[in-house]
Amino acid sequence: MTFTATSLATAVRRRIDNKTKPLGALGRLEELALQIALIQQTETPKLTNPHLLVFAGDHGLTAEGVSAYPADVTYGMVRNFIAGGAAINLFCRQNGLKLLVCDVGVNETFEENTESFVKYKIRPGTRNMRYEPAMIPDECEAALDAGKILINGVCYRDCNVVGFGEMGIGNTSSASLLMHRLTGLPLTECVGRGTGLDDAGLAHKLAVLQDIADRYAHLTAPMDLLAAMGGLEIAAIVGGMLQAADNGMLILIDGFIATAALLVAQAINSAVRQHCIFCHQSDETGHRLMLNRLEARPLLDLGLRLGEGTGCALAYPLVQAAVTMLNDMATMDSLAG
Amino acid sequence: MTFTATSLATAVRRRIDNKTKPLGALGRLEELALQIALIQQTETPKLTNPHLLVFAGDHGLTAEGVSAYPADVTYGMVRNFIAGGAAINLFCRQNGLKLLVCDVGVNETFEENTESFVKYKIRPGTRNMRYEPAMIPDECEAALDAGKILINGVCYRDCNVVGFGEMGIGNTSSASLLMHRLTGLPLTECVGRGTGLDDAGLAHKLAVLQDIADRYAHLTAPMDLLAAMGGLEIAAIVGGMLQAADNGMLILIDGFIATAALLVAQAINSAVRQHCIFCHQSDETGHRLMLNRLEARPLLDLGLRLGEGTGCALAYPLVQAAVTMLNDMATMDSLAG
Repeated sequence: MTFTATSLATAVRRRIDNKTKPLGALGRLEELALQIALIQQTETPKLTNPHLLVFAGDHGLTAEGVSAYPADVTYGMVRNFIAGGAAINLFCRQNGLKLLVCDVGVNETFEENTESFVKYKIRPGTRNMRYEPAMIPDECEAALDAGKILINGVCYRDCNVVGFGEMGIGNTSSASLLMHRLTGLPLTECVGRGTGLDDAGLAHKLAVLQDIADRYAHLTAPMDLLAAMGGLEIAAIVGGMLQAADNGMLILIDGFIATAALLVAQAINSAVRQHCIFCHQSDETGHRLMLNRLEARPLLDLGLRLGEGTGCALAYPLVQAAVTMLNDMATMDSLAG
Repeated sequence: MTFTATSLATAVRRRIDNKTKPLGALGRLEELALQIALIQQTETPKLTNPHLLVFAGDHGLTAEGVSAYPADVTYGMVRNFIAGGAAINLFCRQNGLKLLVCDVGVNETFEENTESFVKYKIRPGTRNMRYEPAMIPDECEAALDAGKILINGVCYRDCNVVGFGEMGIGNTSSASLLMHRLTGLPLTECVGRGTGLDDAGLAHKLAVLQDIADRYAHLTAPMDLLAAMGGLEIAAIVGGMLQAADNGMLILIDGFIATAALLVAQAINSAVRQHCIFCHQSDETGHRLMLNRLEARPLLDLGLRLGEGTGCALAYPLVQAAVTMLNDMATMDSLAG
């Protein structure tokens, strides 16, 4: 696939400029339409069978008191996803995305697979990374495979656009550490309040994470960083992103955790970046810095900090609008005719 | 209707805080849900039969060369709306809003009414406001009535949420002048490139508008300013907004022109403001200043400057998401159960 195909870019820009509107009047939607056309290598891109994949996993680090919520909220929220009552269920339903939830590492056991829930548990929760790597290499690889397999499954059903969400109490700690190591930014700029820590909680979280950053300071390879300081759900998203890019799909990027996963995926294969549509600016400290580092401008800035892929689901109609504009909007020629 | 009903606000906030998410994690959507609940005076608001009303009219001032496009583009674009090929057609269709286009002042004559097009011409184009008021008082009143009548028509069909769009080559000049007089900001800060003026064109536009501002400097009443420097489509929107607020409807606010209409409507009846959802930050110079003056934070900031109500249609899914969250999202109680 040739992303620098300037002839295609020129043709798409001409097509957009000939729509019944002043030049450039649809702003960011015009840039988005061009990006999608280049990813799909066509002047007439299509969005087919959009999916939102939510990966869930627990974190051994929660034993250190780094989150405002107890670890069993992960299990409760996955049950909520299965029952259809969470924010991501509502927003996917409203905007026409299919939701697929996958347990790669929740502490509790789920009964059975359903049309929208897949059991793919690597292990019940990561190890406590303060004392040992969160995953041994095989576990991390297996979590990546979960993401790849799910992506190939939806791709086989003609899905060409996918967003990634996550559920895992404690996972902002992993995201902060991965951000710190992959961007080189000071840890203090990478750590935030997560689901709602107070000042004392934040100070404690920072001290614990500094301890962990020091412990794994010798690691540099992205897969080693991911295994040591990531999460099973984060590793699954990394695998999913890598596979989605390989498959030529559009990737919808959510908030702080998903963007940290992208940093890892991009470090493994820089071509992933071109497939990404940045859906929103999260309210979590550090997300803006990540987006700046990626030179990414998000579509929405609504102070969201929920995760689950909610930013992707909410931004999706804008992605549709960009494609619809490119395909279906009348031309200046037709207006004159 | 009591907008300061603190007991309702407290109940709605409690309802939102009990949803399955960290406190405040849905950011602006939570504020939006509260606003809508207060407008509808219920903990369980509903959005019914959403409409987008586009009013079209020509401007006598275009004879002075203030726009990058010739006046007959207004007629061409209204035909485009009727044919279904404009951006607003696509975005309304995608997001489930009914589009209703109304000719209150296009220079050319249209054949017939349709389900989505209403003939309500006051006169073919405003007078050239550089030499006489754009409308005599009766014309301005009649244009307001057009807006009121259309709103009552859709309200009768159970519509409780409406966006306003406009088409009228030359109408950023009216909007700039109304903004200048109703905010007190210097004219230079109120004037922009419209559909795409170059530097020389912008300088010429500013000189012409200064001329007009001087001519009508003695006027102060909002209806007098609207008649002297407005447009037929802007006056219709003012009437529509006033009636929509009277009817207890939600009002979706688009870009520069629609927000100028709101400044007039608010000057006539300050209660209109509470009904408004600010959909987007336009790329047209001055819109940000207007929104600051209104203490309004728009939902989208995508560099759009197309008008037609496109910002409303694009932001509508976020409004739906806020309402859906309030009504349908699971509660912490149900999660624990």
